[in-house]
Amino acid sequence: MTVTPDWIAVDWGTTHLRAWAMAGQGLTAKPAAQVESNDGMGTLDRAGFEPALLRLVDGWLDTGAPRPAMLCGMVGARQGWVEAPYAPVPATPAALVPVRAPCADARLRVFVMPGLKQDQPADVMRGEETQIAGFLALNPGWDGVICLPGTHTKWAQVSAGEVVSFQTFMSGELFALLGAHSVLRHSVQGEGWDDDAFAAAVTDALARPEGLAARLFGLRADDLLHGQAAATARARLSGHLIGAELAAARPYWLGQNLALIGADAAAGPYAQALAAQGVPVTRTDAARMTLAGLSLAHDKIKETT
Amino acid sequence: MTVTPDWIAVDWGTTHLRAWAMAGQGLTAKPAAQVESNDGMGTLDRAGFEPALLRLVDGWLDTGAPRPAMLCGMVGARQGWVEAPYAPVPATPAALVPVRAPCADARLRVFVMPGLKQDQPADVMRGEETQIAGFLALNPGWDGVICLPGTHTKWAQVSAGEVVSFQTFMSGELFALLGAHSVLRHSVQGEGWDDDAFAAAVTDALARPEGLAARLFGLRADDLLHGQAAATARARLSGHLIGAELAAARPYWLGQNLALIGADAAAGPYAQALAAQGVPVTRTDAARMTLAGLSLAHDKIKETT
Repeated sequence: MTVTPDWIAVDWGTTHLRAWAMAGQGLTAKPAAQVESNDGMGTLDRAGFEPALLRLVDGWLDTGAPRPAMLCGMVGARQGWVEAPYAPVPATPAALVPVRAPCADARLRVFVMPGLKQDQPADVMRGEETQIAGFLALNPGWDGVICLPGTHTKWAQVSAGEVVSFQTFMSGELFALLGAHSVLRHSVQGEGWDDDAFAAAVTDALARPEGLAARLFGLRADDLLHGQAAATARARLSGHLIGAELAAARPYWLGQNLALIGADAAAGPYAQALAAQGVPVTRTDAARMTLAGLSLAHDKIKETT
Repeated sequence: MTVTPDWIAVDWGTTHLRAWAMAGQGLTAKPAAQVESNDGMGTLDRAGFEPALLRLVDGWLDTGAPRPAMLCGMVGARQGWVEAPYAPVPATPAALVPVRAPCADARLRVFVMPGLKQDQPADVMRGEETQIAGFLALNPGWDGVICLPGTHTKWAQVSAGEVVSFQTFMSGELFALLGAHSVLRHSVQGEGWDDDAFAAAVTDALARPEGLAARLFGLRADDLLHGQAAATARARLSGHLIGAELAAARPYWLGQNLALIGADAAAGPYAQALAAQGVPVTRTDAARMTLAGLSLAHDKIKETT
């Protein structure tokens, strides 16, 4: 099968690179093929970006008109392919203008999405602004809060198509760090998941969110003294972190119209925790929102170039 | 100079091994020499402990009577030289009975201190019980709370010579992990320290302790957006963690008679944070307390063997 896309969509994070061959324009554009690699932005110097992308998409390119490649994520950071400066909030994600990146290969025209920044409290995002733009394009007139679970979970207040403010939590990175590098690694590594332990940990952390560092050591002690299963310890670790996050993010979800954008592994525990608080949540797929957002950006470069 | 100790004191943690040549008995015993290595308990299998100790102290041993070596710390864990089972609280640290460890070298008789455990909430300590025993021996009749800052900071409620209850916080390990392995490593690594930033972060975290995971990402964003100095970011990271810990540990220090046992690097920030809350603190040296505690244990094995 030969894939000859109309344009190429790219989600380029710190640790991962994913590209889709897109057929069609605007919100009806569909991915015809998908490829990925571990050439994350964090592993590349500036000269490495173009070769890393070509390794994935070379077979999609021909001698016809150059194909636009629409990129979002950490690839637009200062250490990325080209710096796409942050737009300050309040900002309209659908109005963000992609930045042209230098590209030696004449078969490609490369554009990178800007991220968003908030001056006080200081905060930044790269990649999520594109998913929010896609979500709002697919849900016109939607107002409320969008939570984007991940390594650095974002909570964004959206009104009239604008991101008004947002807040980032490092809970996902803490979960990964503690499971891989801390004394807890002996207690949480393994298979399985304990739903009840997760729910109890969320409830406990919501009630007394200040005790995180003590709860963490308690996971180790419960293993040493009571032989706690790894599936239970890992679910409790996640529950302690997400419960503390929900306690701090309460203004973002209490009585708000709430949407979750994320893959099941990241968003599932948030959905479970919020459901237990009686909060109804709209679940959506992260990749689909990324493609919708990049499709909007692709329409924009057709208009402006 | 030839050192021929009466007995040998050993503090053997997960990452570090330290031994003192002791002259004299009981609380008047004094260290005549000190040696150390990186042969922590975490790097050794069971057969490795005796050789690791002999590498340090071989020169102190002669053909006279075998010398007692009194060991405390993780060396008494299940994966240590010999398991010295935890004593359950309430427990009197001065009454703990050292466990004899097998030793092929006839010049040594090796004894390992037991740790303490608490069933609910599950908690454990190994090493701090010896420092507490030493502190209480040097401060007879002392009642109150002892805080032992470190990788896993302990808060112990002490009454009538007993540890009644205790709680462990992983704040120290979180500080080390986040500075070395998280996205914050780009923002906190460097020299210097910012006292005012530390104090402000402690105050902020004490007032709203639930927001830790968001404050952490804010350190990165303040670097990206406002060029925050590494000395400021590192002091704020410490302040956020210790402030959250103080919020959770409030029952342990509010209106209590409080002693801090720890080296300056670990205990200094706690002392500063507590002073800012108007809490008077007795500071003591960790190594001195360890030696006093091991001296008590040494007296005990003379009685019983």
